[in-house]
Amino acid sequence: MIKRLAVIGVGLIGGSLARALRAADAVGEIIGCGRSIENLELALELGVIDDYARDPADAVADADMVFIAVPLGAIAGVFAQIKERLPAHAVVTDGGSVKGSVLVDAHRVFGRVPPWLVPGHPIAGTERSGVSSSFPELYQNRRVILTPVPETDPWAVARVRAMWEQVGSEVTEMSVKHHDEVLAATSHLPHMLAFCLVDRLARMQSHDDIFRYAAGGFRDFTRIASSSPEMWRDICLANADALSAMLGCFGDEIRELANTIDSADAEGLLALFERARASRERYVDGLEPSSGGESGMLG
Amino acid sequence: MIKRLAVIGVGLIGGSLARALRAADAVGEIIGCGRSIENLELALELGVIDDYARDPADAVADADMVFIAVPLGAIAGVFAQIKERLPAHAVVTDGGSVKGSVLVDAHRVFGRVPPWLVPGHPIAGTERSGVSSSFPELYQNRRVILTPVPETDPWAVARVRAMWEQVGSEVTEMSVKHHDEVLAATSHLPHMLAFCLVDRLARMQSHDDIFRYAAGGFRDFTRIASSSPEMWRDICLANADALSAMLGCFGDEIRELANTIDSADAEGLLALFERARASRERYVDGLEPSSGGESGMLG
Repeated sequence: MIKRLAVIGVGLIGGSLARALRAADAVGEIIGCGRSIENLELALELGVIDDYARDPADAVADADMVFIAVPLGAIAGVFAQIKERLPAHAVVTDGGSVKGSVLVDAHRVFGRVPPWLVPGHPIAGTERSGVSSSFPELYQNRRVILTPVPETDPWAVARVRAMWEQVGSEVTEMSVKHHDEVLAATSHLPHMLAFCLVDRLARMQSHDDIFRYAAGGFRDFTRIASSSPEMWRDICLANADALSAMLGCFGDEIRELANTIDSADAEGLLALFERARASRERYVDGLEPSSGGESGMLG
Repeated sequence: MIKRLAVIGVGLIGGSLARALRAADAVGEIIGCGRSIENLELALELGVIDDYARDPADAVADADMVFIAVPLGAIAGVFAQIKERLPAHAVVTDGGSVKGSVLVDAHRVFGRVPPWLVPGHPIAGTERSGVSSSFPELYQNRRVILTPVPETDPWAVARVRAMWEQVGSEVTEMSVKHHDEVLAATSHLPHMLAFCLVDRLARMQSHDDIFRYAAGGFRDFTRIASSSPEMWRDICLANADALSAMLGCFGDEIRELANTIDSADAEGLLALFERARASRERYVDGLEPSSGGESGMLG
């Protein structure tokens, strides 16, 4: 049971955790904090939070659990703001899509990775933002990855794990490096492809016709290009090395395919498409369906 | 009203047109034809066709409308087989995803584009194949593009247009070249990206983890990579020039993005993502939803 939860950043991710913990009767009081007072007022009105503070230091003052759900570029600032006022018994976790940069931020602000900081990442989301998009089922049957370091207090990890399990998530642990590489491949790269595809087509001369004759599948394929530009800017900067490497690999694969097409290599094309279809059927069809019709791939 | 429809290739595309025309009471008799006798027997059993012939020449012998729905690589062969037995009053159309190659095939077999041939392309489909995947609503509220040439008989165009309108499609006409460029951008390129993405990830060392931590959005994004490998091999070969050019453009865009990330250009990243999101909201959200939960993007 969490007595007092501070949610720094009451958007889709932070708001949905607040709603889910409330629905699970697993939290006493919830204090929100964020940049937009309109969003905080709305969160209050919707019953997502019980109160809010404008200053993160005030929000965390009496909290036993702090969830930081702000864009990656704002995490260091939050660390600095809460540094002096965080209670000794409080556990802090976050929802950032890149974990290496969170450790760098911690080192910069605290001079170390504090034992009470449990870096985490719920693999869930939609392309929408703001507290009005949040819903209590977002994390049900979704994976949450925690990336504790040797300095992390096992008791703090256990508390964060219990919190996520109470909202229906499956919690796993892995190294920071592995997390950032896996996410570069499965989430960051596909988002980049969707953004680039829409941008490329919009810049073509016949873009009116191009979008007019795009069928429903195109909407599915590019849906993730409606995700928050600020969030993705921060993810790119925070996971630059892994993502840039993935883009390089993918660029090679695209070039290889163009060569295969140019040389009219029918066998080569068939082999590629058969391999991809078999892989997808083997791996992806085994995934559990996402709940509530929402296809989460945020971050 | 079509008296006798010959459907060459009774799969998702051919079978769905047969079902839809039957449901609209717009056809007398439907004769199927195809490579697989099991599929034809199934089509008969399902009531999709009234009878079948093994030889396309027999199938078209008494037809007043012929719909060729075989992979692009098989169209020239069908032309050659039906050449001698096609009734004088019959109209022939097709569902090929590339139109330039169909004209080349016609020239090769008939020495010209015959006036009774109306090249067409219904912008509809799913990632599944075979008559068991066909359903009568596939073409409702979907676009069908016809690409008649100056030699095409306007009466033949009118008959094909009426057929598609009877199954609920919106019919438009454009030039062969424009069609092939637009489809390279909106359909062929996204399919290539999905195939390449799945293949690239499957070839990575940690592919087990990679697919395990892929969320629901990844399944949507890569669903089209489950499409028929043979069909896509043929599309690549048939639309090689336009598709290779699109892949080249996209490769440049990817490289440009990698450079933007490498140089930590926060403004540049934000500008790209905002442009893409705005384009998608402007163009794609205006598309009508696809019917029946199926997201058609075939070919």
